[in-house]
Amino acid sequence: MRVTVLSGGIGGARFLLGLRSLGHDVTVIGNTGDDITMLGVRICPDLDTVMYTLGDGISQERGWGREGETFRVREELTAYAEAIGAGNGADAVPSWFGLGDLDLATHLLRSEWMRGGVPLSECTRRLCERWQPGVTLLPASDSPIETHVSLVTGRTVHFQEWWVRMRAQIEATGFEIVGAEQATAAPGVIDALFDADVIVFPPSNPVVSIGVILAVPGIADAIHQTEAPVVGLSPIVGDAPVRGMADACLSAIGVPTTADAVARHYGVRAAGGLIDGWLVDTIDEAVVPGLVADGFAAEAVPLLMTDLESTTAMAKASLTLAAR
Amino acid sequence: MRVTVLSGGIGGARFLLGLRSLGHDVTVIGNTGDDITMLGVRICPDLDTVMYTLGDGISQERGWGREGETFRVREELTAYAEAIGAGNGADAVPSWFGLGDLDLATHLLRSEWMRGGVPLSECTRRLCERWQPGVTLLPASDSPIETHVSLVTGRTVHFQEWWVRMRAQIEATGFEIVGAEQATAAPGVIDALFDADVIVFPPSNPVVSIGVILAVPGIADAIHQTEAPVVGLSPIVGDAPVRGMADACLSAIGVPTTADAVARHYGVRAAGGLIDGWLVDTIDEAVVPGLVADGFAAEAVPLLMTDLESTTAMAKASLTLAAR
Repeated sequence: MRVTVLSGGIGGARFLLGLRSLGHDVTVIGNTGDDITMLGVRICPDLDTVMYTLGDGISQERGWGREGETFRVREELTAYAEAIGAGNGADAVPSWFGLGDLDLATHLLRSEWMRGGVPLSECTRRLCERWQPGVTLLPASDSPIETHVSLVTGRTVHFQEWWVRMRAQIEATGFEIVGAEQATAAPGVIDALFDADVIVFPPSNPVVSIGVILAVPGIADAIHQTEAPVVGLSPIVGDAPVRGMADACLSAIGVPTTADAVARHYGVRAAGGLIDGWLVDTIDEAVVPGLVADGFAAEAVPLLMTDLESTTAMAKASLTLAAR
Repeated sequence: MRVTVLSGGIGGARFLLGLRSLGHDVTVIGNTGDDITMLGVRICPDLDTVMYTLGDGISQERGWGREGETFRVREELTAYAEAIGAGNGADAVPSWFGLGDLDLATHLLRSEWMRGGVPLSECTRRLCERWQPGVTLLPASDSPIETHVSLVTGRTVHFQEWWVRMRAQIEATGFEIVGAEQATAAPGVIDALFDADVIVFPPSNPVVSIGVILAVPGIADAIHQTEAPVVGLSPIVGDAPVRGMADACLSAIGVPTTADAVARHYGVRAAGGLIDGWLVDTIDEAVVPGLVADGFAAEAVPLLMTDLESTTAMAKASLTLAAR
């Protein structure tokens, strides 16, 4: 069976571990809105998190970055910044960003290829030659896309600065997906949607991960039109995000942080929306009848990815729901 | 006393340790022909060697790069190259180059500033805010200059590739100082030559270090015209270079690897050359009368920079010669 998954970082990557273990032919369309250029290197956090996770290189403790990582370069950059001060260009050092040495090698190599004209999709394919993730990993687009966040203070910052530096503690009033309008889907992306037997929205951030993928022209249209069933798994369990700070993103676009509100945000495909089916956690079972009344195929199953076994069961449940 | 020194990397940097200890006002004009862009970062080996040496950050063992250096990023890049193979862009990895993690931080920061339009001279000043070398360190030029080497095989390679990767084992037939003709001296360089009380050519490579500095339009002219005496120290002791592979460079331009041939290569200033005085090692004392006959002020003194004391004595001897 051909399964196509729209994935963000940590949550999507964990889900993919479970899905992969079912032995299907999996294509992942990865979010690139978190991508950022720092110190001249192009960093693709979500693609790399999927790649490292499925390639068994991810830090188990952090869920992002590399296992056995060191931060020699970053420490040295910080030493420079402290010694020279703001008047001497210290602000060029992004001390708040967790740039590891092993991770930096990935970015340096990708950036060098990109300067030579190699598209991001081909860079990703090359990097995956090492990591052998067992899935086909595609960026949503080869065109540069960056999610910018409008803050209640009036400032606009890159998503990474809001998410990592400010820990989403400053209220966001909206998101701009810079570059999305001019972007085109990367080679293979649209085919992977039309040729899929099932399309899955894993428990990734519906706004800044899956939402950004859907903003690439052609992708939402293909999901509307494909014959494959489209199912999703709620990233909200018991009125709180399973991981991360998805509530801060949902609030900014006026969507309540509940398992059923996210489904309604995507909308039911029969009524011009994006999904046919939706899984919520057993703790949210009460929302199932309402979703069914609205035309969703919906079910409550355990949605906590505590280990590979539970994650595999979730993946299986999503495919079962799709088969209905 | 204001002393201006034209310096390459290791030899020049060590000499400067001795000169600095004499307490004069020292300006260093550093070679930039070794500079190279790798993986998108601008590497300035000679400037950094001077900066790290005088800033007490140099690897004592190697003479270049940082003390306590690690090579995590390079090892990881090499792991990529080995895993993905040539068809997947592995050739973008310069595994032959000793790119350390601490050193990389310097390059990343400098490159980030340069992308923002900050000239190399200002980048160097900022980096020196941390290292406090106790001298004014200027690049010969803010314009990019790169020494390329024509090989007997017909290929032309960047100096670094010849020097580091091939260890100068493949015969060079000539050097091209790419960018030199269009270059201008960096701010402060010409003034440092006209305002100096003494100009010193330390025992740096006469071809690819001092020779490249002299190729920047205006620098040789200023040395011809300045009222300051110009003295040099032979990088050749007993018919062999003190360090490195200067013989391979001298051969390529048809200069014998002897202490007096290098002086004659520079030429006596009274006859349109570049230097007034020349120090050779005591082992080469026999060449002194010939140099004197040719119009050089010449003397034989110990020229091995084994410790700070001997290096300081060399620096002192060069200033004494200049005062004659």
